[in-house]
Amino acid sequence: MSRPLLQLALDHTSLNAALQSVNALKNSVDIIEAGTILCISEGLQAVRQLRQLCPEHTIVADLKVADAGETLATEAFNAGADWMTVICAAPLATVVKAHQIAQSRGGEIQIELFGNWTLDDAKAWRAAGVRQAIYHRGRDAQASGQSWSQQDLDRMQQLSDLGLELSITGGITPQDLSLFSDISVRAFIAGRALSEATNPAQVAQEFHQQINAIWGERA
Amino acid sequence: MSRPLLQLALDHTSLNAALQSVNALKNSVDIIEAGTILCISEGLQAVRQLRQLCPEHTIVADLKVADAGETLATEAFNAGADWMTVICAAPLATVVKAHQIAQSRGGEIQIELFGNWTLDDAKAWRAAGVRQAIYHRGRDAQASGQSWSQQDLDRMQQLSDLGLELSITGGITPQDLSLFSDISVRAFIAGRALSEATNPAQVAQEFHQQINAIWGERA
Repeated sequence: MSRPLLQLALDHTSLNAALQSVNALKNSVDIIEAGTILCISEGLQAVRQLRQLCPEHTIVADLKVADAGETLATEAFNAGADWMTVICAAPLATVVKAHQIAQSRGGEIQIELFGNWTLDDAKAWRAAGVRQAIYHRGRDAQASGQSWSQQDLDRMQQLSDLGLELSITGGITPQDLSLFSDISVRAFIAGRALSEATNPAQVAQEFHQQINAIWGERA
Repeated sequence: MSRPLLQLALDHTSLNAALQSVNALKNSVDIIEAGTILCISEGLQAVRQLRQLCPEHTIVADLKVADAGETLATEAFNAGADWMTVICAAPLATVVKAHQIAQSRGGEIQIELFGNWTLDDAKAWRAAGVRQAIYHRGRDAQASGQSWSQQDLDRMQQLSDLGLELSITGGITPQDLSLFSDISVRAFIAGRALSEATNPAQVAQEFHQQINAIWGERA
C-alpha cells in the first residue's frame, strides 16, 4: 500500500490570505488544494497563482463539478490543476467527460463523496477509469457532531477494495490517522487544522510523523 | 398558480462576454443567473458586477453548494445575490445553514436536483423551510440524448405537490413550455438558447409569448 501524502486545503475567502498559508506551509505538504470556497470567492486565478508559486506540487482544483464536465475540466487544467474534484451526484456522463479531459492532460479527477451514493455508483466510476475518490466528513455534518464511525471505515474499505484510492478529509487530526491504517489512502487533507495552527509547520510535522509511524518512512 | 418568470443563465468563462449578453438581454428577462462556470472562472466578482449592472433584477448565484453552507451563503449574499443554489447531495446540515443565512438576508436558496435524490429528501428540505428547487436536465445528460420524459414530469408534479416551486432548465426552448403547464414553475432558465441566439431579444420574446399563452398575461 502506498504511503499517504499530506494535502493542504485552502478554504480562505481571500486569495491573499490563502497565499500566506501557502508560504508558511509549502515546504511541509505534498499537495495544495484550491478549496471550493477559495475558487468561488476568487475564481480560477487562485489555481493559476498556486501553479506559479508551487511549480513542483500537485495542485487540486476542488470545484465539486456537477455538470458541464468538459468545460470546467478544460478551465481547471488550463489554469494549472493536476487533479479536479467532481461531486458524486454528477451524472455519469459528466464524470466521463471530466475524466476524458483530465486524462488527455495527464491529470486525474477525484469523485467527492457527499450525501447519497452507492457502491454501484463507485463501480461505474471505476469502469469509467476513475482512480480516486475523496471521503469527506462534511464541515457542517462535523459541526453538528457527526464523527468518524465504523460505518465510515467499512465504506472506505469497500471503496478501497474496488480499487479507488481515497483522500480523507473533514476535521482530521494527526491522532485520527491510525483509524485508516487498512485503507488505501492517497492523501490526508487538512485545512484549518494546518492553516489556523499557531505553528502550522509543526502540525504538518506531526502529520508526517504519524504517517511515518503507521505506513513507514518515505522511500 | 403563479406565472413563470424567465431566467437568463450566464455560463460564459469570461465575465466580459457574460456582460455583453446581459446588456443584450437585461430588458427581456426577469432573473439573471451567474452560472457555475462563470462563478468558478471569474469568482464572485461576477455576482457583484451583475448586482451593480442590474439593480432591479433577481440575481442568482449558481454555486451548487455541497458543504460550508454558512460561509458560501454569506459570501454569495454579500456579493449581492438574491438566490443561491445548493446541490441536492449536500448534507441536510448544509441546506439548513445556507437557508438560515439566506433568510436572514431576505434571500432564498434553491435546491439543485442532480443524480440521486428521493422524495424523502424533498420533504426534509421543505421541513427546513426551503421553497424552491431546480429541476435540471443536465448538459451532459442532454448531450448524450436524454430528453424530457414522463418520469421527469411525474417527479416535477410530486415536488410541486410538496410545495416546492420549480425552476426548470436544460436546453429548454419556447416549444417545450407547454409540457409544464400543470407544474408550479417559478422560472424557466435558458442559457445558450438565449445568449447564443442570432437575435437574443427575439428568442426571449418567444419565451414570453409562450408563457403568456399558457399561463396568461402578466398582471
